[in-house]
Amino acid sequence: MTLKLFELVGTDETRPFSPYCWRTRMALAHKGLSADTIPWRFTEKQAIAPHGSEKVPVLLHRDGAVVDSWAIANYLEDAYPDRPSLFGGEGGRAMCRMINWWGDIAIIGGIFPMIVAEIPSHLAPVDAAYFRQSREARFGRTLEEVAADRDKAVTGFRKSLDPLRLTLRTQPFLGGATPNYADYIVFGGFQWARAVSPFKLLEENDPLYAWRGKLLDAFDGMARNSPGCPV
Amino acid sequence: MTLKLFELVGTDETRPFSPYCWRTRMALAHKGLSADTIPWRFTEKQAIAPHGSEKVPVLLHRDGAVVDSWAIANYLEDAYPDRPSLFGGEGGRAMCRMINWWGDIAIIGGIFPMIVAEIPSHLAPVDAAYFRQSREARFGRTLEEVAADRDKAVTGFRKSLDPLRLTLRTQPFLGGATPNYADYIVFGGFQWARAVSPFKLLEENDPLYAWRGKLLDAFDGMARNSPGCPV
Repeated sequence: MTLKLFELVGTDETRPFSPYCWRTRMALAHKGLSADTIPWRFTEKQAIAPHGSEKVPVLLHRDGAVVDSWAIANYLEDAYPDRPSLFGGEGGRAMCRMINWWGDIAIIGGIFPMIVAEIPSHLAPVDAAYFRQSREARFGRTLEEVAADRDKAVTGFRKSLDPLRLTLRTQPFLGGATPNYADYIVFGGFQWARAVSPFKLLEENDPLYAWRGKLLDAFDGMARNSPGCPV
Repeated sequence: MTLKLFELVGTDETRPFSPYCWRTRMALAHKGLSADTIPWRFTEKQAIAPHGSEKVPVLLHRDGAVVDSWAIANYLEDAYPDRPSLFGGEGGRAMCRMINWWGDIAIIGGIFPMIVAEIPSHLAPVDAAYFRQSREARFGRTLEEVAADRDKAVTGFRKSLDPLRLTLRTQPFLGGATPNYADYIVFGGFQWARAVSPFKLLEENDPLYAWRGKLLDAFDGMARNSPGCPV
């Protein structure tokens, strides 16, 4: 059975950069699975409309499509129960739902303003225009205005990571002794940033810096070998 | 085997009000256990010093003492493996470590400034003086100054609960279909506030309001039957 994954890319098809797609890509690797990438760009709504989605990731499997990174993680956990668990039991699955929302808000929401102005340069003109227009409407400001105070904003972002940082005092990963989907939720955001921006999100003496490094190296360096800026 | 729990109280010995002790009290009930309360007040450091702690909760069991609410939850999970699980597996235990830190920062740290000025009125003079002095030193302001903008601060606090609120869209509790320690981590903060302050932390149309109500009613209304303000 071949899995196929719609993944967000820009002009460089080898540089997937959606934080949600990276959650899925790490989850697939955790399960010992790979999926053929179907490169997808912001304006290619028609390509995924038949699968009932306007966003990626969309995972195609033998029986159909699964839409949304959280739904895909649950699908993989249920469809491959004999492979390493993404959640470490039903309690983990339930708590991970909250960590997923926290990650959407604190990680993706926190990083987005700091890297948003650099995204259009990775996109073809039609996608860059769409991205700029839709995101500037959302922010009510130009992307450059949004990113202008990032040297200050990064301080608050780093502070918002305290629940992670403190957790790593007593265990190497959010998932415990080894990473699980809780780690991939957070890591997806950092890998997204790395793909499009050289902006320094983490200081080198931050325990999260080393944690991120271990996830960059996981699965034979899958994430580190993906094109990106030095972090 | 009789368990004993040092619990923070003020002048009313029947009104335990520490958020951390409430985490433990709910965890004990979840395991079908009860513990005899040893009332403890802020200045009674000598009573718990022999157990290696300066804070409560401290749980005494046959073989000794366990200090710190997180350590107690883990102790209960390991000592009573055949009773309902607090974590729902090892993945849940690992992820709950992060939720515990998040709860310390967002829930307890978020609520504290809004209720801090009302705590001394629940304390005997010696404890009230200790509390005021130590907390005002920490804040660098009087307790009344800290609480002065709470009508505005509560908006940000409610917003910070979005990861919980969004989780409850698809499952009744953070722990899934039934509550577990992740719920008690958060609930402990609300029960602490309820014990000492009538300040309205949650609006009635907030899904978290109903969630809190279910936990107030849990275990035969254990938390609701504890003295407190209407919420």
